[in-house]
Amino acid sequence: MNLPSIEKILTGDRLALSKAITLVESTRTDDRKQAEMLLDKLIGHSGKSIRIGISGVPGVGKSTFIEALGMYLVQQGHKIAVLAVDPSSNKGKGSILGDKTRMEALSAERSAFIRPSPSSGSLGGVAARTRECILLCEAAGYDIIIVETVGVGQSEIAVSGMVDFFLLLMLAGAGDELQGIKRGIMEMADLIVVNKADGENEISANAARQAYARALHLFSAKESGWTPKVLTCSALHNTGIEEIASVINNYRLHSESSGFFADNRRKQDVEWFESLYQEMIGKMLLENITVQNTYKNCINDLKEGQLTPGSAAAKMRFEIEKILNKTIQR
Amino acid sequence: MNLPSIEKILTGDRLALSKAITLVESTRTDDRKQAEMLLDKLIGHSGKSIRIGISGVPGVGKSTFIEALGMYLVQQGHKIAVLAVDPSSNKGKGSILGDKTRMEALSAERSAFIRPSPSSGSLGGVAARTRECILLCEAAGYDIIIVETVGVGQSEIAVSGMVDFFLLLMLAGAGDELQGIKRGIMEMADLIVVNKADGENEISANAARQAYARALHLFSAKESGWTPKVLTCSALHNTGIEEIASVINNYRLHSESSGFFADNRRKQDVEWFESLYQEMIGKMLLENITVQNTYKNCINDLKEGQLTPGSAAAKMRFEIEKILNKTIQR
Repeated sequence: MNLPSIEKILTGDRLALSKAITLVESTRTDDRKQAEMLLDKLIGHSGKSIRIGISGVPGVGKSTFIEALGMYLVQQGHKIAVLAVDPSSNKGKGSILGDKTRMEALSAERSAFIRPSPSSGSLGGVAARTRECILLCEAAGYDIIIVETVGVGQSEIAVSGMVDFFLLLMLAGAGDELQGIKRGIMEMADLIVVNKADGENEISANAARQAYARALHLFSAKESGWTPKVLTCSALHNTGIEEIASVINNYRLHSESSGFFADNRRKQDVEWFESLYQEMIGKMLLENITVQNTYKNCINDLKEGQLTPGSAAAKMRFEIEKILNKTIQR
Repeated sequence: MNLPSIEKILTGDRLALSKAITLVESTRTDDRKQAEMLLDKLIGHSGKSIRIGISGVPGVGKSTFIEALGMYLVQQGHKIAVLAVDPSSNKGKGSILGDKTRMEALSAERSAFIRPSPSSGSLGGVAARTRECILLCEAAGYDIIIVETVGVGQSEIAVSGMVDFFLLLMLAGAGDELQGIKRGIMEMADLIVVNKADGENEISANAARQAYARALHLFSAKESGWTPKVLTCSALHNTGIEEIASVINNYRLHSESSGFFADNRRKQDVEWFESLYQEMIGKMLLENITVQNTYKNCINDLKEGQLTPGSAAAKMRFEIEKILNKTIQR
């Protein structure tokens, strides 16, 4: 694959950005090396955005909500990128962005860029690629990055580790239990929005807002010093969107002035480095012929039931220790 | 911690088994080494069970269901161990086993052992420890291991990678969307059970059963050659449980005679080895002083914003390449 033009990405060329994301998502070794070169050159141009994580169970209206919020922000002069993390769709179907008709209006905007993240592979791998896609979008001038996630659990934790602000969409009526939202997820939220607050739903949405606000009081204070907010909206009828954008902006002002915004990004950089390191060393060691052969033999023996996973790991440990000891002895 | 007695574990001593699980769950380095020694000695006594994964969204009645199924199986002369994987409770609250009154009757049975898995740490770490807990329970003579999981996504994928049979609990009435169950999860199921099929619910439960059965027809055939089944039950009124146990038994007969049961366990062993290897090498390399110092410097520079995650990873790559090249040159 040709290396996408850095100049074009920096001027916001959508095609160049798309190509860069495809490159970053590729699992081919040569593509990977090119992707790393590209990221190295672009990273100095990244970071100048607010990264917003948006989550909620299927059916809560995430697409409609992101479209409404995105359209509002575009009208305010922002450039919006929407990425989606969906690791649990690893069987190929039911993907978050499988529905091609979603976010039709936002897709048509010149200031909006919508792209799913790679939906296959481990959550760690998907998260690493999503982080890289965030950087690419930032380098291309998008100043608001929305990272959408489905599912209720591990992927939220991964996403909250790569965003500045975490927004949880909820519904009134359905009990928390049925919504599958766990306290751990609610505790991560900087803003809870009760969607579909329209028509007959409005009263129950307001009751839900009050209930969530009370629930949030029970949680311990956030490291950021920010008090999580609860709002209602109707993404379908485009009400309540302005208030949500205003809360996000207030959060940014609050956390920038306290220094938390920058500190948190550095903490996230450390976590990102740790996962890059972990991902890298496995591959690097397997480039060593002795390690590679032992590894292949272990896999074969395991397939034939001649070895247990624990003793196979011990074999690998023995080989790697030999390599490390040789170095120390020098 | 004293090494739990291997003899006592093998004779089914519950206290010894509990101590062994605590040891395996410990994150202390010396405990970890002892845990690996213990597992090495016990692994030859493990494997003689059927491992059943049970999942469903919160509110579907998992505890009541597992209690009903467990009590039935105990009455049939089986020894049941129930483990729970709940990685998303990493903020401490809302754990799957937080409710102490759950499974009261089953807890009181001498042939049943109920234990949550460690609920903190990464999903990979939790999964690795759960696999080890399965082995310990098998060595202690439990011939049916139930691995329960909440959440709807990544943790199901982890659990399906360590069990022989995957059972998905569902409810009638609530749409699939609201239940947060994705196609990818449904596709993993060997058996879908519509719970709470009692009273007024019975008709809708039967309708749901038919709908799920139709949905399953649309999926591609399973590698095991098994046709997934759909049943209804009322865990509360103890109806339909016998049929479920019978389906699980049929699956075992089917997959044992086709050879899939053993093949699948070996495939799982390979995956387990791969994650053990990954977990191990990160730690091993950091025992090398040069690597460790570079790593610490990288983290410090990242915290001060002097380095990007990508360039920090490149530094680590450079150090590790030096070590590997030295070895090759010898």
